[in-house]
Parts: sequence; C-alpha cells; structure tokens
Amino acid sequence: MNILDRQEQIANAFKGIHENILAEFKQHEKEENIIDDHWEKHGLGTGHSVIIDDGEFFGKAGINFSNIKGEKLPASSVGSINKSSGLPYFATGVSVVFHPKNPNIPTSHLNIRYFCTYKNNEVFEEWFGGGFDLTPYVLDEDDCRDWHQSAKNACDTLGKEYFELFKKNCDEYFFLPHRKEHRGIGGIFYEKQTFKNTAEGLNFSQQVAIAFTEAYKKIITKHKNTEYSDEDTKFQRFRRGRYVEFNLVYDRGTLFGLQSGGRIESILMSLPNAVEWHYKFDSKLTDKQEKLYEALKNPINWIDNV
Amino acid sequence: MNILDRQEQIANAFKGIHENILAEFKQHEKEENIIDDHWEKHGLGTGHSVIIDDGEFFGKAGINFSNIKGEKLPASSVGSINKSSGLPYFATGVSVVFHPKNPNIPTSHLNIRYFCTYKNNEVFEEWFGGGFDLTPYVLDEDDCRDWHQSAKNACDTLGKEYFELFKKNCDEYFFLPHRKEHRGIGGIFYEKQTFKNTAEGLNFSQQVAIAFTEAYKKIITKHKNTEYSDEDTKFQRFRRGRYVEFNLVYDRGTLFGLQSGGRIESILMSLPNAVEWHYKFDSKLTDKQEKLYEALKNPINWIDNV
Repeated sequence: MNILDRQEQIANAFKGIHENILAEFKQHEKEENIIDDHWEKHGLGTGHSVIIDDGEFFGKAGINFSNIKGEKLPASSVGSINKSSGLPYFATGVSVVFHPKNPNIPTSHLNIRYFCTYKNNEVFEEWFGGGFDLTPYVLDEDDCRDWHQSAKNACDTLGKEYFELFKKNCDEYFFLPHRKEHRGIGGIFYEKQTFKNTAEGLNFSQQVAIAFTEAYKKIITKHKNTEYSDEDTKFQRFRRGRYVEFNLVYDRGTLFGLQSGGRIESILMSLPNAVEWHYKFDSKLTDKQEKLYEALKNPINWIDNV
Repeated sequence: MNILDRQEQIANAFKGIHENILAEFKQHEKEENIIDDHWEKHGLGTGHSVIIDDGEFFGKAGINFSNIKGEKLPASSVGSINKSSGLPYFATGVSVVFHPKNPNIPTSHLNIRYFCTYKNNEVFEEWFGGGFDLTPYVLDEDDCRDWHQSAKNACDTLGKEYFELFKKNCDEYFFLPHRKEHRGIGGIFYEKQTFKNTAEGLNFSQQVAIAFTEAYKKIITKHKNTEYSDEDTKFQRFRRGRYVEFNLVYDRGTLFGLQSGGRIESILMSLPNAVEWHYKFDSKLTDKQEKLYEALKNPINWIDNV
C-alpha cells in the first residue's frame, strides 16, 4: 500500500473512534450549544473539533480528531533528542476533554494517537500514545475503583503486565511538581508504545477509547442529578486553575502543539471555560476536600484496595 | 561592609519602595479585603506579600517584596548558561500586579529586582532587572502615550538612549508566539543591567517604581467611574486568559520561581481571580476590540505618534 493510502486508512480508524465518542456524549448537551468545526490548516493538516462552550451540562468540552503532517518532527514530541527528530512525520489521533458544570462529576481526559516518521519514503519509526485520566473535585472512592478497573480491563487485552506499567506512567506524568500534587486520581498513560503490528496498535487504541467511554458514562449517570452549591462551584473553578497550570506548564502534548505551529483553538480547547485563582484558598479545607487533597498527594492503588 | 550588612541595606531600599507603593494603592480598596502576609520560607528567604482577592475595586492585586538566598543559581534565571550559574546568590525585589475589576482600567505590572552571586565570599556578579507594562482591555490611546512618556522620563535619568532600548526589550519579551500577539501595549523591560555602582542601580529602580506609580494612578483616576456591562467583563475575563498563558508558558520570572522551589502563592499571585477560555471567542470583534487587537499585533511608538 502506498504511503498516502496507508495514512488515510489509519486516520479513518481514529475518525471512527471520534464519531463513536461524539454519538455517546452529544446526547448530554442541547444541540444548539454544540459547535461542530471541520477545519483545515495550510501546511498542517485537517481536523474535526467538536466544542461545547458554556453549555447546559458541560461548562466546556472538546472532542477533537486531527490528522497532521509536518516536514520536521520537533524535539518536544519525542521527549528528548531521538533518531526520528527532524524527519517528516504523520500524526493522527483523538483528544477529548470534558469539564461538566456539576462539580460532582469529575473532569475527564482521553487521548489516543498514532505517530510515524519517514525516511526515503518509507516508514522509519511508528508508535502509539494515549491514555485517560480523571480529575475529581469531590472524591468518590467507588468511582475511582471503577475507573481504574475499566483501565485495567483495556490493558489486560494486551497482557497482564501493562496496567501496572501504564498506571505508573500516568501517575508520574500528570504531576505538578510546584504543587507537589497530581492532576487527578490517574488512569493510564503510554507513550512511544510499539506493537506487533499497526493493526494491534489500532485495536488497543479502540479498547482504550471504549473503556474510557463506558467508565465515564457510568460516572455521569451516577452524579448528574446530585445537587451542588455556589461554594462547590467556586471550589471547582479554583481547582480548575491547577488543570490550567498543568496543561500550560508541563503538558508535552500542549508544548508540541504550540511548537509545531498547531491550531491553537484545538490545542487549548482543553482549558476550562471558567477558572479562578485565589490566594491561599486551600489553606483551610473541609473534611471532604481534605480527602481529595490526600488522594492527589500520593497515588493510590485503587483496585488493590477493593 | 560585610556581606550580610550589605544585603540588608539593599533589601531595605526595595522594602522602602514596596511600602510607598502600598501606601499609594491600598487606599483604593476596602481594608477588610486586603491580606497582609509576612512570610518566611525555610532555606529560601523572607517576604511580604500584600494581596487583594475578590475585592471591591481590585479583582486581584499582588504587591510583593521578597528577599531570597540560594545555594545554586538555576540556569533559567540568567536566560542561558552563564558564568554565575551554579553559584550562591542573593536576590531581592518588588513585584506588583494589579487586576482592577473595571475593564476600562488596564491590568498593570511592575517588577524591580537586584541579583548578585558570590564566589569566595565576595560579590562575583551583580545586576538589576525590572520594568513595567500595561495590558488594556479597552484601548485608550492617550493612556498609552502617557504611560510611555512616564517610562521615557524614568529612562532619561540614565541617558537618552535607554528608553528606546528598554521599550524594545519589553515589546520582545511580553509576546505570545502561539497567539502572534503581545501581552499588552508595552512599557519598559531590562534584564541583567549593570550600573556604575550599586547606588546608581538602586536609584534607577526607584525612578522606575515612581514612574509606574504616577502613571497608573492617573489611569485609575481617569477611568474608575466609567460604567461597564457584563459583556465588557466577559471580554476582560477572556483576555485575562492570554495573561495566564503568557505567565505560565513564557515568563522567565515565573519559571525561575517554580524551578528554584519558590513560594508558589507569591509567584502565582500574578494570576487573575476570574478567567475564561472560550472557543473562537475573538473571531468576531467589535470595532473597539478590533482596535485593541491591532495595537497588540505590532508594537507602536506611542510617543512619536503624538
């Protein structure tokens, strides 16, 4: 198969996953609040960004598919100088962030992506990356266990050793050193993952997306009617500041997007619509909030704790 | 004079400037909204942070004095690897950010600082840094001219060539490459500036602080009673997102603070209390907003335009 046909086939696999996620989550929001944006950026690629901004159910949501090519792979995308750095590349993937209005429903994030570089018109290296993680504002331990169990089920399709490895990656990656805090209660994260063949990688990407969708649906259903106060919203907006701090200071995906001249609106769709920064706001926490902070300090083996 | 006495003398000069700024701006806010925090962080130093958070006049304000020492100067503080990198250092300075509630009053920022490194118990290198800049939400050209004229007057006390140089530094420094936008309409910025002697540097720091204070007082007085709508506030909160993007992605002062294990509450006091990120919010601008965007695209020689 020639390079372009192969790229299209891979992109189509991710496009299909994107459409499944859309079908599942669009139903929670009023049609009129959903922005459906097919875009093309010259010299970069194409994409399909579906955004909810100041919606009824979602404060902000972004469900993005992208399909990009570049002449020179920037160093940030591979973490460090690497043999593929500087080569032409192809990348496609799906990136999802949900910030529901109700503070009882955590923010969630999913990313699955395919990357390859070319040398002499042949694939030189290819790898997959992705994962999903959960950022609660109110800690619900059952939710955390279910979330990690879903992640484990997806990983087990690859082999028994993967969940522990990918969970550890996630705990290490979504960490804010300046706050000595994790972004949330984790999930899984993998980078530069190679597979037996491309099909196996695509299949795993799909398993991850399904696990995310099922787990998050369950959480939404459980909490969507839970009442909350203005104080709960204020605390949620304050905690969303940490989400912004992570994404702008540490997230390699964001850095790669900014460096590679990516489409800013799609890269920064992950940022919540309403965020507050307050001085020492968390120096006095309620018992419930204290429990959340404890869980963000040291990663927990949620499934072993059952 | 021994090292400790000399450090105290220099710190006291900045402490005096800090107190003058406090005296001037505290009067705009209700006493009960002002948080007065003297802090000490083991192994780092001491400081005096005065914060207004969700005030009547200021959405957020931070007026910070700090006095810190470290065993090893981190590389980010000097921009690149430099002969002082890794040496013990002493740093003191004043850092000010005002985010008034009224969108007709711009956000303003002042920083003045002294830095020195030691080798064999003697000062090895010393330099000053600082400047001030203005981030409007509504463009008032007279304000911009006055602001730059004040900056020029302060620079002229050093010599006729400095204003142009420091203005250019400011335009280059407060720039968001991913937005192709400047953070505001500029002012002055200088880094690693050396002087004939320490006294001259301290005197210039004071001139800069006075120029900032007088210029910003004038702007506050002019606009404090100008009415505004909820839409004006929404636009202000949206534009404050750019302020956060600059500070978290590009600002070397913030990076230095995070890397050197600084006091997070003081470093991030610069972030506004209420910020919104919206998808393509600025794809349709009013004529007035368009004028602001134009001014943020290409730096203007405000004084030559009189």
